[in-house]
Amino acid sequence: MLTFKTRLSQIAKTNGKVILANDYDPSVKNLETKTISNIKKLHPYLCAVKLNFHLLLPLSSKQVLNINKTAHRYGLQTIADIKLNDIGNTNRVTTENLWKMGFDAVIANPIMGLDSLKNLVKSAHKNGKGVITLCHMSAPEAKLSYDMEVKMRKKQQLYQLFLDWALEAKVDGIVVGATFPKIIQYCSKKAGRKLSIFSPGVGTQGGNASEVISAGTNYLIVGRTILNAKKPTDIAKDLQLDSLGK
Amino acid sequence: MLTFKTRLSQIAKTNGKVILANDYDPSVKNLETKTISNIKKLHPYLCAVKLNFHLLLPLSSKQVLNINKTAHRYGLQTIADIKLNDIGNTNRVTTENLWKMGFDAVIANPIMGLDSLKNLVKSAHKNGKGVITLCHMSAPEAKLSYDMEVKMRKKQQLYQLFLDWALEAKVDGIVVGATFPKIIQYCSKKAGRKLSIFSPGVGTQGGNASEVISAGTNYLIVGRTILNAKKPTDIAKDLQLDSLGK
Repeated sequence: MLTFKTRLSQIAKTNGKVILANDYDPSVKNLETKTISNIKKLHPYLCAVKLNFHLLLPLSSKQVLNINKTAHRYGLQTIADIKLNDIGNTNRVTTENLWKMGFDAVIANPIMGLDSLKNLVKSAHKNGKGVITLCHMSAPEAKLSYDMEVKMRKKQQLYQLFLDWALEAKVDGIVVGATFPKIIQYCSKKAGRKLSIFSPGVGTQGGNASEVISAGTNYLIVGRTILNAKKPTDIAKDLQLDSLGK
Repeated sequence: MLTFKTRLSQIAKTNGKVILANDYDPSVKNLETKTISNIKKLHPYLCAVKLNFHLLLPLSSKQVLNINKTAHRYGLQTIADIKLNDIGNTNRVTTENLWKMGFDAVIANPIMGLDSLKNLVKSAHKNGKGVITLCHMSAPEAKLSYDMEVKMRKKQQLYQLFLDWALEAKVDGIVVGATFPKIIQYCSKKAGRKLSIFSPGVGTQGGNASEVISAGTNYLIVGRTILNAKKPTDIAKDLQLDSLGK
């Protein structure tokens, strides 16, 4: 079985590097039908779909499995974005639940600690699944928390430590917000081909697709910019072109 | 409407300070029925029930609402333990979903940043709900991550910064693992009555109930020690006594 990283990069070769963040407000009805219709309409311009609590909380596991199966039918990968950061036992049970629901990868927060992260990656890879860890987020507040100066063996910023841990734990990719292109550049240079870089925050949050792709982002995570557009297909197509421009 | 903090402390006066962490493996069938039966059997010895991804992922929102309603019928509070750490928009949508499902409080990770945390607390309190933030976890790896030396305005450990943020954001309580009694003591001394201290990790993970209660823990979060016991009611009763011994 191919790894998550390979599966994702293969579909990205033809479809481009846009990942749909399918995040709807609780006011939106028929979440399952809407998401499936999005996949059917937008799949030629996507390599993956990312689901967050927006869908994971209101929908049943059967409904989420149905969404993941639809994505797979069109060759897309699926990512559960729960920013997991728990004790070993809970991480294990949580990912078992996610794999049962058909997900290909999970987003986790390395704040759980390096040993916990290593265990998570080991068990995910054994199941042909992927782990993506937060390195630096897209929100403006991330400057305070993820840029925090820390000291373990050496003095560094928190995101530098998280990058080191991502490399040491052999995770598949890291999240670095599209709103911090300089940090993308730093991580891309240091990680080389060992880690894929996933960047949310393009569009609505202020990130620029071409700029972050040049900085070293491998995948653009885009939600509201596509979902709230008058013609979502046109926006997805444009972003696909930007993502393939590299 | 009373605040979450007051509601919890009122029921704790008669029922003691034990919170059931209702965490079952994916191998367990009939999660909804089992949880409801736990509440019916154990409620005289509990003040709250905590649900994690173990139940939130496999169950539908209707099933979770049913569990929360049952807990409320017996006067218990309910806490969603998702260690939330996302951007503002997702935090808002996630908590809206949780309140719809009947939860009284959410556990969050302050790594999201102080401003994000302040917004989360403000919106939760407006809805009569509570926010509990991680300060120091129960897992052994937490020593590396949550004890990390950080420097913002002053040099401190990460958990000290998280404690400062919890106080500044006016959260209702903090999580400090029962496996680190000295850190409980530090936090209890510094936070006084401003924050309730919630301690997981009693029993299976190695924490001692009486010791952490003396150190300043306000609530014991207990899962496997009760769930996997031959006579769960007896264990819950013992822990209740320990918790009232203070």
